[in-house]
Amino acid sequence: MAGIDTSHPYVPRDLHLPDFVPGFLPQSTILAVYGLSSFLVVSLVWLISGRAPKISKIDRLLMCWWAFTGLTHIILEGYFAFSTEFYKEKTPCYLAEVWKEYSKGDSRYAARDAGVVAVEGITAVLEGPASLLAVYAIGTKKPYNFILQFAISLGQLYGLAVYFIASYLEGDNFAASPYYYYAYYIAANASWSVIPLLIVIRCWKKISAASQVQDQKKSKAR
Amino acid sequence: MAGIDTSHPYVPRDLHLPDFVPGFLPQSTILAVYGLSSFLVVSLVWLISGRAPKISKIDRLLMCWWAFTGLTHIILEGYFAFSTEFYKEKTPCYLAEVWKEYSKGDSRYAARDAGVVAVEGITAVLEGPASLLAVYAIGTKKPYNFILQFAISLGQLYGLAVYFIASYLEGDNFAASPYYYYAYYIAANASWSVIPLLIVIRCWKKISAASQVQDQKKSKAR
Repeated sequence: MAGIDTSHPYVPRDLHLPDFVPGFLPQSTILAVYGLSSFLVVSLVWLISGRAPKISKIDRLLMCWWAFTGLTHIILEGYFAFSTEFYKEKTPCYLAEVWKEYSKGDSRYAARDAGVVAVEGITAVLEGPASLLAVYAIGTKKPYNFILQFAISLGQLYGLAVYFIASYLEGDNFAASPYYYYAYYIAANASWSVIPLLIVIRCWKKISAASQVQDQKKSKAR
Repeated sequence: MAGIDTSHPYVPRDLHLPDFVPGFLPQSTILAVYGLSSFLVVSLVWLISGRAPKISKIDRLLMCWWAFTGLTHIILEGYFAFSTEFYKEKTPCYLAEVWKEYSKGDSRYAARDAGVVAVEGITAVLEGPASLLAVYAIGTKKPYNFILQFAISLGQLYGLAVYFIASYLEGDNFAASPYYYYAYYIAANASWSVIPLLIVIRCWKKISAASQVQDQKKSKAR
């Protein structure tokens, strides 16, 4: 049938991906590498931050989160943002495999939808390094640590909102099956909606409280 | 020539806009209405805030900005986000005229590009009402006023970044002429890059300073 491209596993089926090369690694391998590296990063940050004096458990957990999300943004999303033809990759490059696999849940990645690439580019270039700065800022109790965490989390939420709303407006038909829709498009993005939201609320409260303290001090000084 | 649609003034010329109805109002009228209403809003907020005690001039200017940008987000961008077929509007509806005219600088508006509609939707629904809340928060010196201004300004900058980057990725060929490119696409958006950036920097400093004061107070309390 005309317009149907059988060389790739993505939906919509009429998506044109010339020279597409199927993925080499099974889903389990891709997930295991990501899971194990993330576990390693989180464990390292947890252990190292535990040796520093007076860092609360919640701050140590936040340092783990920022290290994990920062490296994900820089490495995984950074690769995607600047690899215009990852789906043509002929060798089993792990980063290309990740996006060949994830595109089953959202083919806008393989199709290089401009909105998706714009959001991923901002995430990789600005939010990635800023997340690593947050690890440092929390560890050294910088006065800007809350506003920095607030800014990055808000950026993550904004990016996710654009990502989901644009997909909805375009018909929400980019997943190869309901399994990939829920496992990749919904579940894999869930952490980046819940955790940033919790951080935004926490930082909002902390910052408002600090402003109140400063206002009271000013009033007393008069 | 096939694929060329001569019924609309937008670029790319092969953009398909069935039942397009040309604008009725001249550019000067559209700009005059927007300019005068904005002047009225800004003057009103300036005068009213001047009667309240102890609001600094910079805070009064910020209240004017938030009232102006909030109403622009809610009314103009709100209309666009939810009017899927404004370009078919047969009567001289002012809001439809605005977007028929602006589309000469960026035809993604008439074409209802998903990324643009997503950004405009978030701006209208979240940032618009939040901007009006900022007018109130500054006027009543709420402890959350800086973090609120910071959050909205960051959202505006994020939206603008997605807006410009996505256009660049799609070939940056959406303006009917260089005049419309620079007057509408560049100049009309300039305020929403410069002013939010200044507010973000100011709030970052204020919030970091407040956190430092709180930290010192905590250290003393020990």
